[in-house]
Amino acid sequence: MQHMNIYEMGLDTNEANYTPLSPISYLERAAFVYPERVAQIHQQTRYTWAETFERCVRLASALNGMGIQKGDTVSFLCSNIPPMFEAHFGVPMAGAVLNAINTRLDSEAVAFILQHAESKVLFVDKEFASVASKAVKMVAVKPTIIAIDDEYLDGGELLGETTYEALLESGSAQFEYIPPANEWDAIALNYTSGTTGNPKGVVYHHRGAYLNAASNVLSWNMVSHPVYLWTLPLFHCNGWCFPWSIAATAGTSVALRHVRADAIYNSIRDSKVTHFCGAPIVLNMLNNADDDLKAGIEHSVNVMTAGAAPPAAVIEGMENMGFNVTHVYGLTETYGPCVVSAWKDQWNEKGLTERAALKARQGVKSPLQQDLMVADADSMQPVPRDGETVGEIFIRGNIVMKGYLKNPTTTEESFEGGWFHTGDLAVWHEDGYVEIKDRSKDIIISGGENISSIEVEDVLYRHPSIEEAAVVAKPDEKWGETPCAFIKLKEGADTSAEEIIRFCRDNMAHFKTPRHVVFGELPKTSTGKVQKFVLRQQAKDS
Amino acid sequence: MQHMNIYEMGLDTNEANYTPLSPISYLERAAFVYPERVAQIHQQTRYTWAETFERCVRLASALNGMGIQKGDTVSFLCSNIPPMFEAHFGVPMAGAVLNAINTRLDSEAVAFILQHAESKVLFVDKEFASVASKAVKMVAVKPTIIAIDDEYLDGGELLGETTYEALLESGSAQFEYIPPANEWDAIALNYTSGTTGNPKGVVYHHRGAYLNAASNVLSWNMVSHPVYLWTLPLFHCNGWCFPWSIAATAGTSVALRHVRADAIYNSIRDSKVTHFCGAPIVLNMLNNADDDLKAGIEHSVNVMTAGAAPPAAVIEGMENMGFNVTHVYGLTETYGPCVVSAWKDQWNEKGLTERAALKARQGVKSPLQQDLMVADADSMQPVPRDGETVGEIFIRGNIVMKGYLKNPTTTEESFEGGWFHTGDLAVWHEDGYVEIKDRSKDIIISGGENISSIEVEDVLYRHPSIEEAAVVAKPDEKWGETPCAFIKLKEGADTSAEEIIRFCRDNMAHFKTPRHVVFGELPKTSTGKVQKFVLRQQAKDS
Repeated sequence: MQHMNIYEMGLDTNEANYTPLSPISYLERAAFVYPERVAQIHQQTRYTWAETFERCVRLASALNGMGIQKGDTVSFLCSNIPPMFEAHFGVPMAGAVLNAINTRLDSEAVAFILQHAESKVLFVDKEFASVASKAVKMVAVKPTIIAIDDEYLDGGELLGETTYEALLESGSAQFEYIPPANEWDAIALNYTSGTTGNPKGVVYHHRGAYLNAASNVLSWNMVSHPVYLWTLPLFHCNGWCFPWSIAATAGTSVALRHVRADAIYNSIRDSKVTHFCGAPIVLNMLNNADDDLKAGIEHSVNVMTAGAAPPAAVIEGMENMGFNVTHVYGLTETYGPCVVSAWKDQWNEKGLTERAALKARQGVKSPLQQDLMVADADSMQPVPRDGETVGEIFIRGNIVMKGYLKNPTTTEESFEGGWFHTGDLAVWHEDGYVEIKDRSKDIIISGGENISSIEVEDVLYRHPSIEEAAVVAKPDEKWGETPCAFIKLKEGADTSAEEIIRFCRDNMAHFKTPRHVVFGELPKTSTGKVQKFVLRQQAKDS
Repeated sequence: MQHMNIYEMGLDTNEANYTPLSPISYLERAAFVYPERVAQIHQQTRYTWAETFERCVRLASALNGMGIQKGDTVSFLCSNIPPMFEAHFGVPMAGAVLNAINTRLDSEAVAFILQHAESKVLFVDKEFASVASKAVKMVAVKPTIIAIDDEYLDGGELLGETTYEALLESGSAQFEYIPPANEWDAIALNYTSGTTGNPKGVVYHHRGAYLNAASNVLSWNMVSHPVYLWTLPLFHCNGWCFPWSIAATAGTSVALRHVRADAIYNSIRDSKVTHFCGAPIVLNMLNNADDDLKAGIEHSVNVMTAGAAPPAAVIEGMENMGFNVTHVYGLTETYGPCVVSAWKDQWNEKGLTERAALKARQGVKSPLQQDLMVADADSMQPVPRDGETVGEIFIRGNIVMKGYLKNPTTTEESFEGGWFHTGDLAVWHEDGYVEIKDRSKDIIISGGENISSIEVEDVLYRHPSIEEAAVVAKPDEKWGETPCAFIKLKEGADTSAEEIIRFCRDNMAHFKTPRHVVFGELPKTSTGKVQKFVLRQQAKDS
């Protein structure tokens, strides 16, 4: 006999009880409830939420007037200034997909993205005119180019026939913007920073953007009206979805063109910044800055960091300044951080080393993410929570991309078995916190033994003369691979390869000790990640 | 030519990137990340999140063992103690729908609900055994009855063949509980408190419960680990969805059987309560309590109130104790509050009267609700934001019920035009805040003029001798209707009908002045709402 379900009779969705989730609604509410509050600060410029809303509507209207339709890509090559922030609302309000391009890419890489994304419009910050104009020359179907002027930047060049501000003028503030018909509609396209091969185009949906924006607020215990400084590039996973979190909390977005210690400290002091995000290298820079830059900051500041574990010295330095560091983890495919090293009150009692070790763990799923596991890469069976067995991190839930644009094979592979395969190798601690040991491709296999490059790097970072360290595999006839360490010394420090190797032998299993040590600057991506593929090539060639 | 959308090719949902939203996931996360934290306090009893999770799984398992299936109704007649809290997770984890019944209903009303909801199981707190046993006798298809014992309550009677605790014992902690197949699946059934006619069964979906739980956190600026006291009945819109908000923030749920000033103050002091909700009458009671009850509370407490605007005296009294009052508005159909009188920093400078007037407004949509408007009831065109034109409040978004159970006609009517019709009459202020003037049916029409009963009550509350006031229409041959005031005087106060009427004439338009004044206790619903239909009958008969 069929089981009648009385709850499914005459109780369907309708316009009154179902609206597609979209972060556009956060902007609407901020502008409606707090029209007079400052939404954006850029040097001496201020925009309220009412003004910001109007600027976004005008942008959507102007794009619509240019013939932009649902499913079209609109690209931005722009620093962390108001147009880049506004694009996170104005582009989707035209029904289009925002593609924020890494501003440190060369013209070939930008050309690849424009071509692959089939961009209809490219907004170019005058600082990046040269790269953009070269890139566009390489693209078969040219996008319309709009220049982004910035009165606070000298130099650069205005490309295209009009400017961003003129375009806003041409748009209507009464434009009936286009909310998504479905929360599964695409909102953004972000290319992986790609340490190897061609970048992949990661497609975000409105649902995930909405939920991750709220998840950020819950995860970081944010309350209304945070003042958020853009030390993190907005092109990086849409600034980890923080443009939408700032709207959800009616906060203030503080622009930052160049990530420099003086500009950051001045902003924190002058604008009473309460929150910022960045790679540990940014924290490191702030930590090592002159004391006079740090003076005069009395309020507490919250810092979120990802990409690598913050070293103990950095945590200590930050804490001494009243900066509270939260360590998170994520990938472009998960809208940025979706794993958080959730702090527990009882850990406050512990010593610095132990606290740093706890904080170094990537942690647990963020509040609105569904599932996280460390499992055997082949069987997809969870590994024991013993803090030792290495497995791959798998993630699933609503804060996971739609897939890779025009790449169904890789999309399918990455979702095999109903989980997103991160490619990151980790252990699972007894208390459920995950700790990354390495990227799959960064593991070093020497004489059949797996060596975690991160583990070796952790030891190197304890050496008093070392500022930065990266360890990669060097092909070896006898062992298959051996660890090769690339090291940047602290200013004025003096040591030798032999001394470094001896230090390692004293602090780790011998088979893990680097056989080669190379001194110099480390090559990095624009987001501060060490480009290990470059180092691997160097190690191979040396 | 058809417009190709590259973002809709090979980018469908799958198990890795789409999970039905459900508040069950909040419990999972709290138990996983904070297993050792105290989730529930009931007198001397403590349950951690790990224990609470296990109890909920066992409940789901036991219900499953009893043959409960998806779409079945499981009813609870229970005070604010752990089983009622746990039911908010355990019942949906069995795939079933939770029906928390108002514990102050009489047996006829309970019987109507059991019959209409087709309840398969009824859990009965021993305090309510008498009402329940009478009710079940009136129902054709008898639900299985399970007794809820409470070691901290003397008296009462255990109905049924087993108890809640024995049932949990019989369930398996390893049961694979049943998440919703679709986020539109029903999670709860709440009967309107019904000031007229038969109550309607309001059906909640998992999506709305999940989103409102998060919206509560954002709206109230809650951070991790709130300590939440159950002054608000859990049967009232599922405690405004706070069981799920508490899980989302890994907080602590503090049980409370009877809403009494001593018990509340003792809990606040002993358990360091940070948050509670309640009708203004609860705040009033706390405010008027003896000073020695209030002693020793040093921490700040957040109070959310709805149902009527909190009077200035109550706000002042609360503030003097360090209690911060937030005024919210909603209906059973909107999962409880979905409108919040969002406070602005600049209002802190204002005097008490002005602050009370600002706080008395119902406010703006809550962070995750989609839309709110005041509009002409017929044309559904928004009224001007002039603070004067009265219209009906309309709401739409994701925090709106599926509809009324087995009542497609009323469901359709209530959603006509793609908005939920609240039946509440309000003005829309220039700053976008709504302020309720009356329920449609509470408006008094005298000589063709509309009189807001709330406006008259507001004036009455300013009279120094009046503790509570309610105004309803009294049929009148000449005028159609005239206002009739029912008044409860403060202890020891002494005044007369003539003096009250004179006071009104001095403070409002003459045609609004009550023609009749009746002194005595006011009849109330279990949630503290004055039962105006009772008063209307009295006014008519007098």
